[in-house]
Amino acid sequence: MQRIIDFVLELDKLKGVTRKTRPLGLERYENSAEHSWQIALLAASLAPYAEESIDVSHVVAMLLVHDIGEIDTGDTMVYTEGGWEERKAAELAAVTRIFGILPESQGAPFLALWQEFEGAETAEARFAHVADRAMPVLLNLASGGQSWRENGISHERVVRRIAPPIKAGCPALWGYLEGRLAEAREKGWFGAE
Amino acid sequence: MQRIIDFVLELDKLKGVTRKTRPLGLERYENSAEHSWQIALLAASLAPYAEESIDVSHVVAMLLVHDIGEIDTGDTMVYTEGGWEERKAAELAAVTRIFGILPESQGAPFLALWQEFEGAETAEARFAHVADRAMPVLLNLASGGQSWRENGISHERVVRRIAPPIKAGCPALWGYLEGRLAEAREKGWFGAE
Repeated sequence: MQRIIDFVLELDKLKGVTRKTRPLGLERYENSAEHSWQIALLAASLAPYAEESIDVSHVVAMLLVHDIGEIDTGDTMVYTEGGWEERKAAELAAVTRIFGILPESQGAPFLALWQEFEGAETAEARFAHVADRAMPVLLNLASGGQSWRENGISHERVVRRIAPPIKAGCPALWGYLEGRLAEAREKGWFGAE
Repeated sequence: MQRIIDFVLELDKLKGVTRKTRPLGLERYENSAEHSWQIALLAASLAPYAEESIDVSHVVAMLLVHDIGEIDTGDTMVYTEGGWEERKAAELAAVTRIFGILPESQGAPFLALWQEFEGAETAEARFAHVADRAMPVLLNLASGGQSWRENGISHERVVRRIAPPIKAGCPALWGYLEGRLAEAREKGWFGAE
């Protein structure tokens, strides 16, 4: 029992890992814990539009653990280019440590979920990536491009990073986003390339 | 698709609903979105100790939606006495509005999950309540009783509110907590009755 308690208290640190997006109407930045909650519900809501047949509860489980490595490494914006291999190795070391707080029989399934998400080779992992990539875009579309402007992210870079996974896992969502992103470009909500 | 987007942006407001507990080491108060994420993982980790046979993914789904009504009503501390019936009616009105943003076929299952949690009559709902009640206690045990002291909550009141549901759903956890709560009383981490 003590190891489970230690694990869940270690998870508390994800509430202090900040991202580049601000919750709508709030001054502070979003943290990776509340982001994980929101994308789990986005995935559950979007499930009827999944391109492949998926087990939505498995997608939800993956999304709840996918950012836990950031407890040691911090968040890296998806538009950052280069250095991904080193960051992913550091995140793997982090989740190995954190899930290792639990007894093996409980830690191993969490680590397997994290690795499945990273591998992006199952239908569930691909759909989980759709929710993870789409959410900051939806928040930016609702905030006049807050994190795109603050970080100088261009329309081209957003499309390059998010179109392939979203098209693959949820083409209907891409159909929606493509037009909204073009409108946002017209409105000047992006940084320069 | 627009209704799903509107729903998930409405959910963003739960990030601004604050609770009485502070994340460990942070000055700010915890919000109900990150709390929902944490207790979903607490439930998943504690599942081997559940008193009854449970479908853990169903417990997780309930926990992800159980606080959504607070978007309209705000959080009420579990130790508040009296007025629960009115608050629960207000929360039901809130979730009816919020899940009603979605098409009926998607909103109805979310509303059913919320109602199942509130009813606390299934094994999964009982276990979901264990995680919801235990988490602020675990945070208080790790912070020297931060929210108990700030709000004048006594040992007796904590035990009265949390012992019955935790004993019912997860006796092993109650066995652990009972001793820790007695130690905390010795240390003066509670308010006066």
